[in-house]
Amino acid sequence: MTTPLPAALDAALSELLGDGWLTDADARRRYGEDNSRRYALADAVALPGTREQVQAIVRLCREHRVPIVARGSGTSSTGAAIPYAGGVAVSFERMNRILRIEAGDRYAVVEAGVLNSELQAAIAAHGLFWAPDPASADVATIGGNLACNAGGPHAVKYGATRDNVLGLQAVTGTGDLIACGSVTTKDATGYDLTHLLIGSEGTLGLIVEATLRLLPKPPRRASLRALYGDVTQAAAAVSRVMAQPVAPAMLEFMDRACIRLAREVGGADIPDAGALLMIEVDGEHETLPHALEAVAAAAAGEGLIALDEAPDEAARERLWSARKSLSPALRTIAAGKINEDVVVPVSRIPDLVGGVEKMAAGFDLPIVVFGHAGNGNLHVNILYDPQDADQTARARAALPRLFELTLSLGGTLSGEHGIGVAKRDFMPHAFTPATLAAMRAIKHALDPDGILNPGKVLPP
Amino acid sequence: MTTPLPAALDAALSELLGDGWLTDADARRRYGEDNSRRYALADAVALPGTREQVQAIVRLCREHRVPIVARGSGTSSTGAAIPYAGGVAVSFERMNRILRIEAGDRYAVVEAGVLNSELQAAIAAHGLFWAPDPASADVATIGGNLACNAGGPHAVKYGATRDNVLGLQAVTGTGDLIACGSVTTKDATGYDLTHLLIGSEGTLGLIVEATLRLLPKPPRRASLRALYGDVTQAAAAVSRVMAQPVAPAMLEFMDRACIRLAREVGGADIPDAGALLMIEVDGEHETLPHALEAVAAAAAGEGLIALDEAPDEAARERLWSARKSLSPALRTIAAGKINEDVVVPVSRIPDLVGGVEKMAAGFDLPIVVFGHAGNGNLHVNILYDPQDADQTARARAALPRLFELTLSLGGTLSGEHGIGVAKRDFMPHAFTPATLAAMRAIKHALDPDGILNPGKVLPP
Repeated sequence: MTTPLPAALDAALSELLGDGWLTDADARRRYGEDNSRRYALADAVALPGTREQVQAIVRLCREHRVPIVARGSGTSSTGAAIPYAGGVAVSFERMNRILRIEAGDRYAVVEAGVLNSELQAAIAAHGLFWAPDPASADVATIGGNLACNAGGPHAVKYGATRDNVLGLQAVTGTGDLIACGSVTTKDATGYDLTHLLIGSEGTLGLIVEATLRLLPKPPRRASLRALYGDVTQAAAAVSRVMAQPVAPAMLEFMDRACIRLAREVGGADIPDAGALLMIEVDGEHETLPHALEAVAAAAAGEGLIALDEAPDEAARERLWSARKSLSPALRTIAAGKINEDVVVPVSRIPDLVGGVEKMAAGFDLPIVVFGHAGNGNLHVNILYDPQDADQTARARAALPRLFELTLSLGGTLSGEHGIGVAKRDFMPHAFTPATLAAMRAIKHALDPDGILNPGKVLPP
Repeated sequence: MTTPLPAALDAALSELLGDGWLTDADARRRYGEDNSRRYALADAVALPGTREQVQAIVRLCREHRVPIVARGSGTSSTGAAIPYAGGVAVSFERMNRILRIEAGDRYAVVEAGVLNSELQAAIAAHGLFWAPDPASADVATIGGNLACNAGGPHAVKYGATRDNVLGLQAVTGTGDLIACGSVTTKDATGYDLTHLLIGSEGTLGLIVEATLRLLPKPPRRASLRALYGDVTQAAAAVSRVMAQPVAPAMLEFMDRACIRLAREVGGADIPDAGALLMIEVDGEHETLPHALEAVAAAAAGEGLIALDEAPDEAARERLWSARKSLSPALRTIAAGKINEDVVVPVSRIPDLVGGVEKMAAGFDLPIVVFGHAGNGNLHVNILYDPQDADQTARARAALPRLFELTLSLGGTLSGEHGIGVAKRDFMPHAFTPATLAAMRAIKHALDPDGILNPGKVLPP
């Protein structure tokens, strides 16, 4: 007996799951961490292979009032998958089948453990793609994408996860299997439990299956790089690009500090500037030149220093190298990084970046800003040395200030990472007590004993 | 005293609302009907001017356990706004202010009583539009659009109501004001109450304010009319159009019976055919020709009889006249009409239309099918003479068969009208008992005393 769980529960789940029930110390540790670098020890790990097994796990755990933390590949950066209360970590790695691809009707039905990249490969053969493209797409599961409402750079044109799911099946905190939504793109039938469950981070139900809306893959794409004197000018350009009818497929932003990092540390071929936009358009052979022209015209304006078009895919790759060199560059200059994903209205991007610059000076820490400008969804990275207690304390103190700033600009705490434990205690700043009470009432309705991922999303 | 309400409630609401509290028989009748031609008598009518008044109304009604039915302009075709249980009809006609238009950030904040058409006129000045365009847009309120998740023909490219709302404020059944969502297009912060409330038909909360996602209006549009030998061929063309990257702005379908009606009764200039598609594309001057070419190429294929392009706006109007002549034509041939809005996967459109043809023969009633083929959202119109008891009985008997057929094809009960009372008793066919139980638990969480629009959406 290696688990602190009640013996009866251990025996029942061991019998139910066979080699899908792990209680050794190594497994309990391995399934107790995620990409937030947080960590806690699960009491056991369950690897269900069917939805009926998921139902049985929830029913048995409920009987014993044992918490359950669902997890995909553990790429959460908010600690959403950390079993702080112990209990059973349920991994969906054995529920990894693509059940159906209906190319003519543009949807696919998948189990929760299918990887985003596996799905994309399977549907690419039909000329289709699924819009969510988080940085973790290679290893992240669809279930995890749904649980956290994952985004990515293409969301500016194609939406994030919540915009690209038609229906799902989930096991609620009572062990009941619910099936919501439909396979169609229009649906006014009853309460929208689908969107409610998406982004609920495993606190309302365990998603076991999803029906995903697929889109035709545009055959061509092209990129522009625009450099501006300052952030205000770049943000004005973002507004202009978003106000004209050609939707960019990506619209990424880098601040002055990022540009410098990309060049000096990342080795990117990029001149100094106050702000940079990377703009991608996609479409068909015949329309792409005009799309490029339209966004280039919108990008032009006060403060534009240089506008470079990538005439082909190789040139496109070179342009994007600056953006791609950023993460490795960040890693070399600071071992510690608080990577936030706040969102502000596009017009308030200059206020956010200006405020962050003041914070960086005030806290004496490098803070760099880049991200998905078309949605106003910016990654604010607070860099520090975790060996240095004082720097670490300053970085942690900067975080609430960032959220205050974001909310004061009419923004919201998270655009694509979710809340988890990282932002949980800031929820009362984002929502009124009555709104939080309504969320808690819904939590209680679907998980009356509070066994699903306790302590996440909603503050105690 | 002209209302059967408790005297204390009558007095309190009269004092609160002044001339916004109506208890005369005429008002009670007028606010007791909707476009479903259903009817019931409210006990009183409240016309709040502020959200605080809405909160007070709900709190007072809750105290007295008096039902509340929220309503916009009463354009529901499902009886969603009929006060069958009496109580207070709350009309939002005095909460009709457009509070903010943020063109640069592409959103508007409106009170619930603003008309869809008023909003469109106000934002057109900024080159923007709000996607939902139900047939009732001229008179329907935004609050009603949200409550019923209204759609319209442009949903195929731009989404229905649920896809175009960023946030809202609503008063729940406890009288609490909740504020959910954000003003940004990406949001992974807490539970998605916004989408949950949209389409809940006033049973979970009274929406008082909404933040709407606006889109840049494409400067040009063009239309195609495609005639096919039969429905299977037309549906295959719909699949082909939806599978290529140029999204049509509209993709409307008419069956053989509709085509005949449009010509013989509506006077439309249109040859006989088994099925018709009207396809609209929009975009910019430079890209429109290619878009038209792309959808024309996709529309071409087996069974195509004729493909007509409208070279200009006048020709476009002529092409659309067939579709527009349909509703008046229907009215002249039958006084009674059950107009459903079922949805099936695009590939199952032939099965739906074929099944409906069999039903029409079996029930000896004209049944015509037209609608939003790109979403598989078809309006099945069962025509009958309400003076003829036998025809009326047959029409009513046909309805459950239509829903059975739709569900057997993997479809859903409603694409844009909602459930109301019209489809409420078919919900157990569309959802499992566990799923309905989850919906009921959520209803209880937000409206613990069941005073909000009782008897709608969920079967007793």
